Amino acid sequence: MAEYALHCFAQSGNAYKPALMLELSGADWEAKWVDFFNGASRSPEFRESLNEMGEVPVLEHGGKLLTQSGVILDYLAEKLDSFGWRDDDERREILRWILFDNHKLTSYTATLRFLRQFARTGETPVTAFFEARAKSAYGVLDRHLDGRRFVVGDRPTIADLSLCGYLFWPDEIGIDFSPYANIARWLDAIRSLPRWQAPYDLMPGHPLPKKA
Amino acid sequence: MAEYALHCFAQSGNAYKPALMLELSGADWEAKWVDFFNGASRSPEFRESLNEMGEVPVLEHGGKLLTQSGVILDYLAEKLDSFGWRDDDERREILRWILFDNHKLTSYTATLRFLRQFARTGETPVTAFFEARAKSAYGVLDRHLDGRRFVVGDRPTIADLSLCGYLFWPDEIGIDFSPYANIARWLDAIRSLPRWQAPYDLMPGHPLPKKA
Repeated sequence: MAEYALHCFAQSGNAYKPALMLELSGADWEAKWVDFFNGASRSPEFRESLNEMGEVPVLEHGGKLLTQSGVILDYLAEKLDSFGWRDDDERREILRWILFDNHKLTSYTATLRFLRQFARTGETPVTAFFEARAKSAYGVLDRHLDGRRFVVGDRPTIADLSLCGYLFWPDEIGIDFSPYANIARWLDAIRSLPRWQAPYDLMPGHPLPKKA
Repeated sequence: MAEYALHCFAQSGNAYKPALMLELSGADWEAKWVDFFNGASRSPEFRESLNEMGEVPVLEHGGKLLTQSGVILDYLAEKLDSFGWRDDDERREILRWILFDNHKLTSYTATLRFLRQFARTGETPVTAFFEARAKSAYGVLDRHLDGRRFVVGDRPTIADLSLCGYLFWPDEIGIDFSPYANIARWLDAIRSLPRWQAPYDLMPGHPLPKKA
């Protein structure tokens, strides 16, 4: 058994955040596939034994269960001594971007992609609403990255690993990122990190089985 | 000048989170009103001098500027030595709920209330979408509070102060909280804390001027 076990599935950008961190850090880890599209993460058993919030990722390590990607990244930064902060001010600057990611960037992006790519709702007032909100968040990040290589402290941190979680799927989100040149450059810098892998290569469950 | 200055406005539940913490802790603080409804927090000047994310709250303290309610709560827990954690495991359990709040509970609730109470969109596919998502988040919190007085560690922490940020406005959100008996009891417990005040009493800018 590997030292770290991550409950995840290939289509989850939130699970990709810690999966990418484990892989980039060279950790001894294994993926445990969660059948999200058949409701496994929202089942009473999952809520009881793994996460009352009914969500992946869930990390198992040394008898502990951790949930919420931001908490897992915080934990791994300490355990793996990588992608972390140098002092308390930097810890809070990283947390600031992880919160912005959770509240705005990932929240809007993940829902927009889900509606378009998996729920297949087509274009609706709801997708239009989320697209506008997502673009506003990309604008904030793009302006922040102007003149910066990474989000905090000129080196990759867990803030980058959180914010990039869904952004390697531009086609599935259905957004043209070419107006966000700083984001495009920053994503290339993340792609260039040793051991980087795309979400569908790093976690199990892709492609989805064809519906009968 | 007060020791702490909080840039805020009465209608912001995200600003209420640190405002309530400052007040409950007996801190020497003052509110600086931000004219959100006329776009002040999204202006280039605000983004340049206070918060590139274009949002309140912003806390000024000892020459530092802090943004994101979760970061400000983390900072104040340390500075005021109140509503914080006892060890690193508890710190992460608190962070877990603050992230859930940001990603799900507050995110859906604040948008739903904004559309109904301020944008006055009426009932649309967008409000229906956010209402369903918000109710799912209330279900998670309500189940968690079954048998618990507070969210973490049987005493009020910054997790409670984050999660309650918008919930003293049930009429404005337009949700009946009576199916969530544990949430109702928990909100009463927060209301009973010494020095508690409702958002419209604690921050400036209520009521809004009537439109011409």
